[in-house]
Amino acid sequence: MKRLDILDSTLRDGAQSEGISFSLDDKLNIVRALDGLGVSHIEAGNPFSNPKDYEFFERASVLNLKNAKLVAFGSTRKKGASVGEDKNCIALLSAGTPAVSLVGKAWDKQVTQVLGAGLEENLRMIGETVAFFKRAHKEVIFDAEHFFDGYKQNPSYAMAAIQAACEAGADCVALCDTNGGCFPEEIARMTRAAVEALRCPVGIHCHNDMGCAVANTLLAVEAGAAQIQGTFTGIGERCGNTRLSTVIPSLQLKRGYGCILPGQMGSLTKTARYIAEVSNMALGKFLPYVGKNAFAHKAGMHVDGVSKLEGAFEHIDPARVGNKRNFLISEVSGKAAVAAELKKFAPELTKESPETGRVMGKLKELEYRGFQFESATASLELLVKRELGMFTPFFKVEHFKIIGEQILEEEGYSSSALIKVSVGEQSEVSGAEGDGPVNALDRALRKALEVFYPCLADMRLIDYKVRVMEPKNATAAVVRVLIESTDGENVWTTVGASKDIINASFLALTDSVEYKLMLAQGTGKTV
Amino acid sequence: MKRLDILDSTLRDGAQSEGISFSLDDKLNIVRALDGLGVSHIEAGNPFSNPKDYEFFERASVLNLKNAKLVAFGSTRKKGASVGEDKNCIALLSAGTPAVSLVGKAWDKQVTQVLGAGLEENLRMIGETVAFFKRAHKEVIFDAEHFFDGYKQNPSYAMAAIQAACEAGADCVALCDTNGGCFPEEIARMTRAAVEALRCPVGIHCHNDMGCAVANTLLAVEAGAAQIQGTFTGIGERCGNTRLSTVIPSLQLKRGYGCILPGQMGSLTKTARYIAEVSNMALGKFLPYVGKNAFAHKAGMHVDGVSKLEGAFEHIDPARVGNKRNFLISEVSGKAAVAAELKKFAPELTKESPETGRVMGKLKELEYRGFQFESATASLELLVKRELGMFTPFFKVEHFKIIGEQILEEEGYSSSALIKVSVGEQSEVSGAEGDGPVNALDRALRKALEVFYPCLADMRLIDYKVRVMEPKNATAAVVRVLIESTDGENVWTTVGASKDIINASFLALTDSVEYKLMLAQGTGKTV
Repeated sequence: MKRLDILDSTLRDGAQSEGISFSLDDKLNIVRALDGLGVSHIEAGNPFSNPKDYEFFERASVLNLKNAKLVAFGSTRKKGASVGEDKNCIALLSAGTPAVSLVGKAWDKQVTQVLGAGLEENLRMIGETVAFFKRAHKEVIFDAEHFFDGYKQNPSYAMAAIQAACEAGADCVALCDTNGGCFPEEIARMTRAAVEALRCPVGIHCHNDMGCAVANTLLAVEAGAAQIQGTFTGIGERCGNTRLSTVIPSLQLKRGYGCILPGQMGSLTKTARYIAEVSNMALGKFLPYVGKNAFAHKAGMHVDGVSKLEGAFEHIDPARVGNKRNFLISEVSGKAAVAAELKKFAPELTKESPETGRVMGKLKELEYRGFQFESATASLELLVKRELGMFTPFFKVEHFKIIGEQILEEEGYSSSALIKVSVGEQSEVSGAEGDGPVNALDRALRKALEVFYPCLADMRLIDYKVRVMEPKNATAAVVRVLIESTDGENVWTTVGASKDIINASFLALTDSVEYKLMLAQGTGKTV
Repeated sequence: MKRLDILDSTLRDGAQSEGISFSLDDKLNIVRALDGLGVSHIEAGNPFSNPKDYEFFERASVLNLKNAKLVAFGSTRKKGASVGEDKNCIALLSAGTPAVSLVGKAWDKQVTQVLGAGLEENLRMIGETVAFFKRAHKEVIFDAEHFFDGYKQNPSYAMAAIQAACEAGADCVALCDTNGGCFPEEIARMTRAAVEALRCPVGIHCHNDMGCAVANTLLAVEAGAAQIQGTFTGIGERCGNTRLSTVIPSLQLKRGYGCILPGQMGSLTKTARYIAEVSNMALGKFLPYVGKNAFAHKAGMHVDGVSKLEGAFEHIDPARVGNKRNFLISEVSGKAAVAAELKKFAPELTKESPETGRVMGKLKELEYRGFQFESATASLELLVKRELGMFTPFFKVEHFKIIGEQILEEEGYSSSALIKVSVGEQSEVSGAEGDGPVNALDRALRKALEVFYPCLADMRLIDYKVRVMEPKNATAAVVRVLIESTDGENVWTTVGASKDIINASFLALTDSVEYKLMLAQGTGKTV
């Protein structure tokens, strides 16, 4: 098995993405997750340009990583200066990481016009900076900025730049498609030229401005690249970087390269979701391998095909990357998919059973009103059981009221909720204040119900998503709310939809509580 | 200039995506938009499997398209049947489109195990169905399902399947990577083999399960493919199809192929946003060419580079595809970006001016509290003008109150708002009911202010987005609200953030009204 170095730059190049701002704890959490998977390098920041990164490297030094080397990022020395006196190089050295990556220019036009340096001086800047860090016993990765664009216009200068790094002792020279504008065949051809010319290993660093970062990376590996740079979920400047969660399984599962610990491949999906969550960006539902829909089937023909032949419409078994096949249950899904869902609870039912038709009808009606069950499988289960007469409600909400009031000029707004619930003959009234009307309602509801069902104390909401539909009507549109809840053991998602965000949230909240009570009942624990 | 056929399947394969459900009007609107751009083929549905599609073809026949041919999609005849009596073929014919696409199997294993047909019979099904539609004077595109997977296991059968279609008179044989699991070099090699073997043109149809659909399509064109199939925004079953809005500019602007009308290239971004909106899916912000961030620069070094040298960190001029460069203003953006923003209103200010530092400080404080100005440029402008003392508020909200009450069991929830505003010495109290608390507040606010500013009657909200941050705390998290408004001429976006969704919405609403009043003042129209 040929080993490939994987350098994850989520915390450095990924931080250049719109909407990303990592806290110190976020960064430490991401480093731990990546180290657990077994990537070889984690590029974690630029200690010179960003004081937060500097503090990070201080704290990271005690992390005790098992698999990965921490990499600090910086530039070659300034023109006309001495490396030992260059502030950037001093900061980079003091980060104390086992490896550093140094970006330097390989495109003649950028050297003269952006850097304002001479072409020969730029080669000295590269060579001297690499040599400086080698003398300090660092592993040195040289990032050849704009290598491909430079090679197209002046191949001999682009090659001279990477040769300068290699001859000064760089452990790896990474070829960068900095603008992300190269065609796959260009990346393949020029990477091959670099691999043939250099005696040190070559790496590949692609951007996605033509939508080809992943494929370009695969082609570069075929051309001999030994290190892959990217970000785990693909975030990065402009259109993003090579998405490592996509290239790793392709190369490891289909081509036999060693990228991460083989035993960790089943954690790929979980890790991608975790890193996306820490980055505060939802993981794209349609992402290869790790997206929620990566193995989702909607067309009746495909549902039918996958049922008959494993792999009929799937390129790998989803379990290998820790993901799941799912049949999308929606108004357009066939009866076969709905029947498969019903069979989980009533194995005797078929496509032809009247119950199947009834559930289909209810689904269509609710989807028309804005509900959507593709992700809210707990609400779907409740809907099915209600229609099959297999569910008795645990409580009834008699009424509730929300009061919101602006009490001070800024941030001074208070929300409270009043609710009356009944369980059998008994009823309970409760009130609560909250951060927002939904939080107030959630607290009041559970406060009232805990009198009857103490097990609700274990339960908490972990995600709350709002989707406004028919945006043309803006605030008067239908609002769909998805709530994700946990009791420490299980995680479930429920849905509500209404013209009113409070009412939509209320429907999702009550479904979530009902589902928890059903779970508790099923396990025989004290409800 | 070599012409490439572009077949857009947004309305057929795209409709297989999770979350997509097109109405009849949606479909007609998308057809008009694609025809305007100048794609050659629009695959618009399956008249046999979907009655809605059947109705669509009836209405579409009067559309009078200028550039594109409508294509109806269906399968080769059933095994052991006669084409003329096959219900699917009859439905397909009666759609009355100038072109049809016929899917047939090219992978031996799928023929026997999924279709349950003999290998020779499958070849007859292909040949007879193609011949049937050629006799009916249709342009026939044969979609060779699983061609690449089939070729890997049994190349001679895969070739026999496409030869059968070609010999029966197919106008184009499209090679499908149905499972999306092929490597770029495989697609390139096998497409070349098919192009060399067939005397009819070859098309390419890729899926994105390995993140390579776009690159695989580019490589197939290089190998001789003359028709590209995909969906404009990339939607489709599982991980989606080839994104046409990415491959079209790459091939037309960088390789000189004719894909769409050259005069329409500047509408590429607008069209992608329109199609995404009609599909009720937000267009990915990070998409190549057409995404909001496709030409966004955040790193200080990149902002600096682009300012010095056009193309320093951009692969094309964004104006060529109707997109824009933007510098992301955020706490991590350099003073250069903030200074550039200030210069719009006060040209004398520089990076070193104390005002620049003050605005930076305010930005950091607000972003810490959950605001984000990268998209809310109207709120950013107000912030800057407030800090520069160039803005006098048009009104003051004295207080407001929201009351929500559940009045019936289902959907019976009512929200109302009460507000008091003052303008100078005068004040006005107003109340309104609404579909949800935010809608009620919006109505009450504008009802009160229209007494002073009649121009607000022109204004309406067109989009309302809610983002819940720090999802670990669920409903108690910080909520960021983005509101997009229009007065018919201008479109602007404002932001609010708070722990309370009502308060966050209130902040974005008042900013939106202030911005409208500032615009009206600027044009000298009656405020």
